[in-house]
Amino acid sequence: MPSISKKGTLMPESPIRKLVPYAETAKKNGINVYHLNIGQPDINTPKIALDAVKNNTIKVLAYSRSEGSEVYRTKIAKYYKKHDIHVNHDEIIVTTGGSEALLFTLGSITDVGDEVIIPEPFYANYNGFATASGIKVVPVISSIDEAFALPPIEEFEALITPKTKAILVCNPGNPTGYLYTREEIKKLKTLALKHDLFLVADEVYREFVYDGLTHHSIMQETGLEQHAIMVDSVSKRYSMCGARIGCIVSKNKEVMATALKFAQARLSPPTYAQIASEAALDTPESYFTEVNEEYKERRNVLVRELKKIPGVKVSSPKGAFYCVAELPVADTDVFAQWLLEKFNDKGETVMVAPASGFYSTKGAGKNQVRIAYVLKQEKLVRSVEILKKALEMY
Amino acid sequence: MPSISKKGTLMPESPIRKLVPYAETAKKNGINVYHLNIGQPDINTPKIALDAVKNNTIKVLAYSRSEGSEVYRTKIAKYYKKHDIHVNHDEIIVTTGGSEALLFTLGSITDVGDEVIIPEPFYANYNGFATASGIKVVPVISSIDEAFALPPIEEFEALITPKTKAILVCNPGNPTGYLYTREEIKKLKTLALKHDLFLVADEVYREFVYDGLTHHSIMQETGLEQHAIMVDSVSKRYSMCGARIGCIVSKNKEVMATALKFAQARLSPPTYAQIASEAALDTPESYFTEVNEEYKERRNVLVRELKKIPGVKVSSPKGAFYCVAELPVADTDVFAQWLLEKFNDKGETVMVAPASGFYSTKGAGKNQVRIAYVLKQEKLVRSVEILKKALEMY
Repeated sequence: MPSISKKGTLMPESPIRKLVPYAETAKKNGINVYHLNIGQPDINTPKIALDAVKNNTIKVLAYSRSEGSEVYRTKIAKYYKKHDIHVNHDEIIVTTGGSEALLFTLGSITDVGDEVIIPEPFYANYNGFATASGIKVVPVISSIDEAFALPPIEEFEALITPKTKAILVCNPGNPTGYLYTREEIKKLKTLALKHDLFLVADEVYREFVYDGLTHHSIMQETGLEQHAIMVDSVSKRYSMCGARIGCIVSKNKEVMATALKFAQARLSPPTYAQIASEAALDTPESYFTEVNEEYKERRNVLVRELKKIPGVKVSSPKGAFYCVAELPVADTDVFAQWLLEKFNDKGETVMVAPASGFYSTKGAGKNQVRIAYVLKQEKLVRSVEILKKALEMY
Repeated sequence: MPSISKKGTLMPESPIRKLVPYAETAKKNGINVYHLNIGQPDINTPKIALDAVKNNTIKVLAYSRSEGSEVYRTKIAKYYKKHDIHVNHDEIIVTTGGSEALLFTLGSITDVGDEVIIPEPFYANYNGFATASGIKVVPVISSIDEAFALPPIEEFEALITPKTKAILVCNPGNPTGYLYTREEIKKLKTLALKHDLFLVADEVYREFVYDGLTHHSIMQETGLEQHAIMVDSVSKRYSMCGARIGCIVSKNKEVMATALKFAQARLSPPTYAQIASEAALDTPESYFTEVNEEYKERRNVLVRELKKIPGVKVSSPKGAFYCVAELPVADTDVFAQWLLEKFNDKGETVMVAPASGFYSTKGAGKNQVRIAYVLKQEKLVRSVEILKKALEMY
C-alpha cells in the first residue's frame, strides 16, 4: 500500500473533532447538548443577502473572475472606506472564505521551512494552514492574567530569525476575544518595518467590538503599505459562515499579483455566495447595532456567571464572540470528553472546545477551554450552571 | 520591502490570462471575439439545480460538514452506482471544486520534492497545483499523431524514481479529448501496483464521451482499491462551473482520513452550491443525451472544418469538449496575441488557448492550440473560417 505524505501525517485534527462522536452518542442517549464549542452564530443572516440568492436569474452558473467581480470588489472597497480603510478594488482579491485568503497569503510570502510568529493562543486552523504550507508557527505566549494582551514586543523580536517572514495576528482575537489597541498595532508595525517582515492581520471579527472601543486595522497604518496584508471574511460579519467568501487586501502589488496566480489556479470563488456577499454589503447599520448589543449582553452574562464558579478564571473579552476560561482541572481534553460521555444534569450537558488546540506550544493551555457565546442568554446561563455542577462532581 | 516566496515566483500564470488584456482591447475597439479559449460551456444549468437554490429556506447560512453532508454524499454514491462505480458515502469527501479535490489529494500523498508522472499535454492548472504543493511534474509526452493515446507504459516506468508518488491522468482528457481505453487503464493499474504508486484520475468529463464509447473509471478496477484516488466535479457535468463543488473518492481509508484533515482546516465547502449540486443529481437522463448529442455535433463540425485548413493537424477527440490542433505557425503564443491585436475579418476574430501552457516540457506544443467547442455550431463554423483567413494572412 502506498504511504501517505509526512505533511498529511502532521496535519492536526480539529480540536473539536475528537469530541464529535461523544457528542453524537450523548444525543442518541437523549442528552441535550449545549454547544459552546463552535463559532457558528445563531444570528439570522441579513434578509437582503438571502433574498438576493433566492431572486437570482442565473441560467448558466458560470465561472466568475478569479479575483472576484469588479463590481463586488468596488463595493467592498466602499465598505472599508466606512471603516477608515482606504483601498481600491484592485487591492482586493475575493477568496473562498478567510481560510483560502490565509492559504494564498502564506503561499505568496513563505516557502517550506519559513517561520511565522503568532501570539498564542490562536485560531486552531492556523496550525493546519502552516502544516499544509510546510512552514513553522513560532508562538509568543500571551497570558490570561493580562487578558491576552500583546506580549512585550521584545519577546517577538527575540524570536526573529533569517527564516521569519511574517507576524500574524487575529484582531479581535479568536479564541481570546482580545482587541489590540492602536498602540499595540503601532508596536507591531515598528517591528515589521525594522526587520522587513510582513504583518498579516486576520480581521474577520472587526465589527464585533464592545464597550465603546474602536477596532484599529493594520490597513490604517501609514508607512506599512508594503508590509500589511489583511485577511477578511463575510462569515461572522453577516452570520453567513456557509457562504465561503473572504478576501485578501494589500497595497503591495507584488503580493497581490502573486496571490492572484494562486487564485487563477483554482479558477474562481463560488458564484452564489458572491451574490449573497455583495447584497450583504447593503445590510442596514441597525443590524450590526442589534447584533452587537446582543453579543455584548451575552458576553456580560457569560463572564458574570463563569466568575461565580470557584476556581474558574476568565478574562472579559472586548471583541469577537469567544472567551478563554481557565478551569480547575488538569486536562480539559479529558474533561470535555467526560462532560459528554459521563456527565449530565437533568438530561443536559455542555460541549466546550479544549484550548490545547489553540496553542502550538506543547502542553500549554491544558487547563483552558474556549467558550463561544453564540447561544441565547438563557441558554448561556443554563450552560454555565451545568458546567458548575460538572466541575463540582469532577 | 519584504520579498515574496520562491514558490509564488514560480507559480505559473494562466496561459490564457496574458491574452485577456488584448481581448479586452479588441472588444473595446468593437471587434467581436469568439471564445474558443475557455472550458466554460454555454449549455444551460439544469433547471432542477437552479430552482433548488431559488427555493431554499435558509435563515442562518451556516457551515456545512467539512466532508459535505451525509445526505449529499449518499446521493453521489448512488449516482456513481449508475456508472458502475461502487463506493459508500464515507469514501467521498465533498470539495470546493475539482481544484480543491486535487490540492487535498496532492497534500495527502506528496511532500515537497516528490514527483508525479503526468501524460502531457495536461490541464494547465496541474502545473499550478504542483508548484503550490512544492512537487515536481514529470511529463510523459503523448503525440497528436497517436490522437494523444497513452504513451507506451515503458516510458512511464523509465521515469519512476524513489521520489515518485503517483501517476495522474485526466480521462477524458483536457486538453486532448482523448478517452483512455479499458486496456490502457489496466496497464496503468499494473504499473501502479508494481511500484506501489497512487493512481489519481481526474474524471470530471466522465459524461462527455462520444461515438458509442464507454468511459472506464479507475474506480472500476478490482485490486486497485488502495491505490486509486478519483477527482470529480459538478462543473462540466451540469454546466455549473461557478458552483465550485467537486469531490475526492477513494477506498483507501488512510488517504480519506488525511484528506479530511485538510478539509477540516478550511471548514466547509460552500452551502448554496451543495444545494444546487445535490438537486442536480436528479437531472433527467434526457439532459445528458441532448447535451452529448450537441457536443458530438459540435466536435464533428469543428474537426471537419479544421481539417479543411492547409497545414492544420487535428485529432478527433472521443470525449470532453476540447481538441488540440497543430497550426502552421512557429509560436502559437505570438499567433494568439496577433489574432486579438492585429487581425480581424469583418470586425470579428477568435481567441484560442496556446498549448504551451498545457505542457511542462519547455518548448513543447509551441505550434499547438487548445480549442474548446463550447459554442453553437454556426459560431464554430464561423470561428474556423476566421482562423483559416488569419492563417492565410499570418
